[in-house]
Amino acid sequence: MKGACAIIVAAGQGRRFGSAKQFAALRGRPVLEWTLDAFENHPEVAGIVLVLPDEKDGARFIGRYPKITAVVRGGRRRQDSVRRGFARVPAGAGDVVLVHDGVRPLVSAAVISRVIREAARRGAAVPVVPVEDTIKEAVRGRVVRTVDRAHLCRVQTPQGFSYAVLDKALRRAVRERLTVTDDSALAELAGAEVRAVEGDPRNIKVTTPSDLILAEALLGA
Amino acid sequence: MKGACAIIVAAGQGRRFGSAKQFAALRGRPVLEWTLDAFENHPEVAGIVLVLPDEKDGARFIGRYPKITAVVRGGRRRQDSVRRGFARVPAGAGDVVLVHDGVRPLVSAAVISRVIREAARRGAAVPVVPVEDTIKEAVRGRVVRTVDRAHLCRVQTPQGFSYAVLDKALRRAVRERLTVTDDSALAELAGAEVRAVEGDPRNIKVTTPSDLILAEALLGA
Repeated sequence: MKGACAIIVAAGQGRRFGSAKQFAALRGRPVLEWTLDAFENHPEVAGIVLVLPDEKDGARFIGRYPKITAVVRGGRRRQDSVRRGFARVPAGAGDVVLVHDGVRPLVSAAVISRVIREAARRGAAVPVVPVEDTIKEAVRGRVVRTVDRAHLCRVQTPQGFSYAVLDKALRRAVRERLTVTDDSALAELAGAEVRAVEGDPRNIKVTTPSDLILAEALLGA
Repeated sequence: MKGACAIIVAAGQGRRFGSAKQFAALRGRPVLEWTLDAFENHPEVAGIVLVLPDEKDGARFIGRYPKITAVVRGGRRRQDSVRRGFARVPAGAGDVVLVHDGVRPLVSAAVISRVIREAARRGAAVPVVPVEDTIKEAVRGRVVRTVDRAHLCRVQTPQGFSYAVLDKALRRAVRERLTVTDDSALAELAGAEVRAVEGDPRNIKVTTPSDLILAEALLGA
């Protein structure tokens, strides 16, 4: 496969949201369709592996998104879902494997391009935005310190990896029974250098009803 | 003065936003009016000191908000504005002095009450919400670590202090030439215990045009 392969992780059951948020309506269409559009329409993305709560839900997407090469059922944790998706990425596929949250429907082509370019050059790249808020560390209701945010950033997706780096990171996670909150943390633990590239404040994760309201508003602006 | 006194800091010149954001229209009314409403209507708030880019701008608010006891011009840094406002708080006023961002128009009565109660009991209190994003530390484009966010929180306003704690903190900041990003950091540096109370995800800071869109949407929801 020439070009990047994107694993779109949309396996959430929506325990927090109340219903599976990747299927919530955003301007009349499921959140996930907006996300798939971004990758389907990106010239450097050659294939899409879609991870869903149930493979059966994939039928409605496959015909409409020719780049989808596989639909798989998610695992227990996010990283299990990524591993199941990665198993369906053709070995040695393209230069870069992207891992993207299905519930980040506003990802721009520019962010996808930056991640692909840097991951191809350096092995691993993540899009980041600055931390705008004052951050404190609190223990049992007591503020113990104000964290210096000068070097802190919030991490978005897609996260990009060379096939070899992600393969190594996922294998190591299984072997050492690691649990992490994002995929690049596995790459860090596996010793890879992870590069930070410029993300986009609009590239929000739709996790709550108010996120959905914001996404609607951003699409209208 | 019986009851809390609120210093509303709205002295920004809007260098980032393009124009002074406290005067931007939110559902047809200046952001700052929504903020003033919240404190004017709160039964435990007895007085308001309003800090503006220019005292002259205060005329339009004074008649309509009977709790405003003083309008002062802001200083160079945020903490200078707070200090100028604090100078107009009656000595020993109420039990608690609140410091609030003029551009947090969606602050709820419940959050204000929680901060007043805890600050009265413990000397200093701030409203916080969890950090939802994965946070990384990056230096010159390289991710150096994933920060454990278990104890991290984002700090909102109003921040509440006993008169004595805030007085001591502000004096110390002048004496030691400290620059900080929020007022409770001064209290921490002055040795006070700062308590974290439950904030509200809706209590956003309107800093960018997309924040204004979100605020509009939240008001409509």
